[in-house]
Amino acid sequence: MTSLDDVRALDAQDPLAGFRNRFALPEGVIYLDGNSLGARPVGVAERLDSVVRDEWGEDLIRSWNMHDWINAPRRLGGKIARLIGANAHEVIAGESTSVNIFKALTASLQLNPERSIILSETGNFPTDAYMMEGLAVLSGGRIRQSLVARDALEDALSPDVAALLLTHTHYKSGSLHNMAELTAKAQALGIPVIWDLSHSAGALPVDLNACNADFAVGCGYKYLNGGPGAPAFLFVAQRHHERIFPVLSGWLGHARPFDFDDAYEPASGIDRFQCGTPAILGMAALECGLDIMLEADMAAIRAKSRALGDLFIKLVETRLEGFELRSPRNADKRGSQVSIAHEHGYAIMQALIARGVIGDFRAPDILRFGFTPLYVGYEDVWTAVDRLASIMQSGEWRQDRFNIRAAVT
Amino acid sequence: MTSLDDVRALDAQDPLAGFRNRFALPEGVIYLDGNSLGARPVGVAERLDSVVRDEWGEDLIRSWNMHDWINAPRRLGGKIARLIGANAHEVIAGESTSVNIFKALTASLQLNPERSIILSETGNFPTDAYMMEGLAVLSGGRIRQSLVARDALEDALSPDVAALLLTHTHYKSGSLHNMAELTAKAQALGIPVIWDLSHSAGALPVDLNACNADFAVGCGYKYLNGGPGAPAFLFVAQRHHERIFPVLSGWLGHARPFDFDDAYEPASGIDRFQCGTPAILGMAALECGLDIMLEADMAAIRAKSRALGDLFIKLVETRLEGFELRSPRNADKRGSQVSIAHEHGYAIMQALIARGVIGDFRAPDILRFGFTPLYVGYEDVWTAVDRLASIMQSGEWRQDRFNIRAAVT
Repeated sequence: MTSLDDVRALDAQDPLAGFRNRFALPEGVIYLDGNSLGARPVGVAERLDSVVRDEWGEDLIRSWNMHDWINAPRRLGGKIARLIGANAHEVIAGESTSVNIFKALTASLQLNPERSIILSETGNFPTDAYMMEGLAVLSGGRIRQSLVARDALEDALSPDVAALLLTHTHYKSGSLHNMAELTAKAQALGIPVIWDLSHSAGALPVDLNACNADFAVGCGYKYLNGGPGAPAFLFVAQRHHERIFPVLSGWLGHARPFDFDDAYEPASGIDRFQCGTPAILGMAALECGLDIMLEADMAAIRAKSRALGDLFIKLVETRLEGFELRSPRNADKRGSQVSIAHEHGYAIMQALIARGVIGDFRAPDILRFGFTPLYVGYEDVWTAVDRLASIMQSGEWRQDRFNIRAAVT
Repeated sequence: MTSLDDVRALDAQDPLAGFRNRFALPEGVIYLDGNSLGARPVGVAERLDSVVRDEWGEDLIRSWNMHDWINAPRRLGGKIARLIGANAHEVIAGESTSVNIFKALTASLQLNPERSIILSETGNFPTDAYMMEGLAVLSGGRIRQSLVARDALEDALSPDVAALLLTHTHYKSGSLHNMAELTAKAQALGIPVIWDLSHSAGALPVDLNACNADFAVGCGYKYLNGGPGAPAFLFVAQRHHERIFPVLSGWLGHARPFDFDDAYEPASGIDRFQCGTPAILGMAALECGLDIMLEADMAAIRAKSRALGDLFIKLVETRLEGFELRSPRNADKRGSQVSIAHEHGYAIMQALIARGVIGDFRAPDILRFGFTPLYVGYEDVWTAVDRLASIMQSGEWRQDRFNIRAAVT
């Protein structure tokens, strides 16, 4: 049995331990939900205060130049690029993941104007499939959405498929797709792949260009610690830039937005995928998260993430009964999260949160735990399982207060 | 000639004078660019600090419920609704104006599936036309964009037109369209109208439902003082809600987003027009701006706005030579801004900014001044024209430093 001393020894040797104090977490809380909303970086409140008081308040409209607000989408895109194996001029930050999915889907269709199927998998985080559905409705039947089970994906690749949209790390199980292999198989049939990196960027090494990826999108508020509703991002491989007329052709994607021409002329490169005016407050917070992430070694993040997940699984299996592992046991096939199932999962998670261990529940029976190596340590994992064991022994999760579902969980 | 004493007497009687100290403006600056980026409300820095430290930092993921983040788009939409003559459940805040234009355009097409033309005017703020162009490209030729001059708009209305997109207050001249009249004329031919209220909301009374409006969009960072890149908004008349399958069908527009179903089922009412996760930091800042605006009487705002514009025109025409009025002289036909033209407009505006009067320049020759009645007074207008007269007399605008164009102006 792994003891408290054992995990403390692991923390003492952790090369990432110094990052813990770069994040402000509440006293006594073990936060295992950074895969849903990353923790607050130290310094973000001060940064926002400066953006609001000094930049917006004092320099007003001039801040678009004086404080380079106008380049925030490019600058942050360049920083994100370093985390996902892209070139700086292939990534742009802004808007929501959902809107960026729409941009990538419509761009893919332009690469394959004769094809009619947009393909994804069932049981994925739903916004991906939903955005496909809206596009299919808009097309009046010309474009058809197809969702197939994960193990049927390869068989569903065909010369009718205009785009394959996949989430690299599954939001619920944490299972990883093999990006290089699936990209190659799809491309062999002329199918560009859109990788949703929402649960991957900042959690594990991603090398889009090594995989010859076409498109990717991702979320700023999970492992990138950009704050609630942070700007998302879009990657478009350089080889595609000039072939695509952006469908969400907003003014900031114009070659010369301040000429106010009547006709749209796409900017060169990734800039054409900008649309509306960037959300500067959100950009400022996201940049704080990115700057910390860029100081860390991604290989060290991945090594610790694997170890934290392995430790969690081992402790759950030695100390608890009645839970079923719903994530890959093999860390090679797993992102930075572990899900376990229990028929009373909802109430158990509420009881655990009341004990200061925050994970989340996903219907119908999943308790999901995210391991964010920059601010979660080995002892945190040990304590989380210890409290879970205590809750199961005491039966406190049976209390009525833990069995009332809130509107949002 | 209007004297300094005259304008001071007007300020002394101004029922809105008390709102000036609700905004934090730099000492010595006369800010006549609130039509581009509204000033910083007092309290917004403190509010953001609390959202960042207390809500994000302490309550973390639980804040979606505990601090009602999840309802921010609806709550802010309801507040905006009161400013534009809509019902609370007809407006949703979020995303950019450009993205909301796309939502409204694609919704309009669903009301008129057999029609092929989307109509707007030339010389408008370009993102409106650009978003139409992207949609036309996506349609593969089925949808055609048509831009006609303002005085040809009524003649261009025809039974082939699927949607008419117009900016209520022109971004450059400040000219107002007659919303009630144009809406009625278009609707008589079965054409829904999309009103872009970017330069109207918060600047003058708008009564969408009295005009039987179909759709509207608008900007959060101009007269609503929501901060740089603030969330925008979308109005959809209740009678259309259930007829529209949202094309940007993101997860937060689902009837039950936390069921994570594979199939999209639109939420009832305006909620279906939500798409991605809301930008909570931007929402928090925007709400500060809205709350101040809602304390003010819109009739008083409009009365002062007209008077400020009239005073500006009168002073320019009595004290300056070589400038040409490019806004309607009749305040009934003018929003809350006045544009004047001068062949050396760019350099003159730079020299004026150096003297602490901030307006903006719009190519090729327009000096644009916004009058935001909550924080601009009559003496400000007098002083602005006085400094402009001084610059013209001294010829200081001829200095080289005022003649170098920055990338963004």
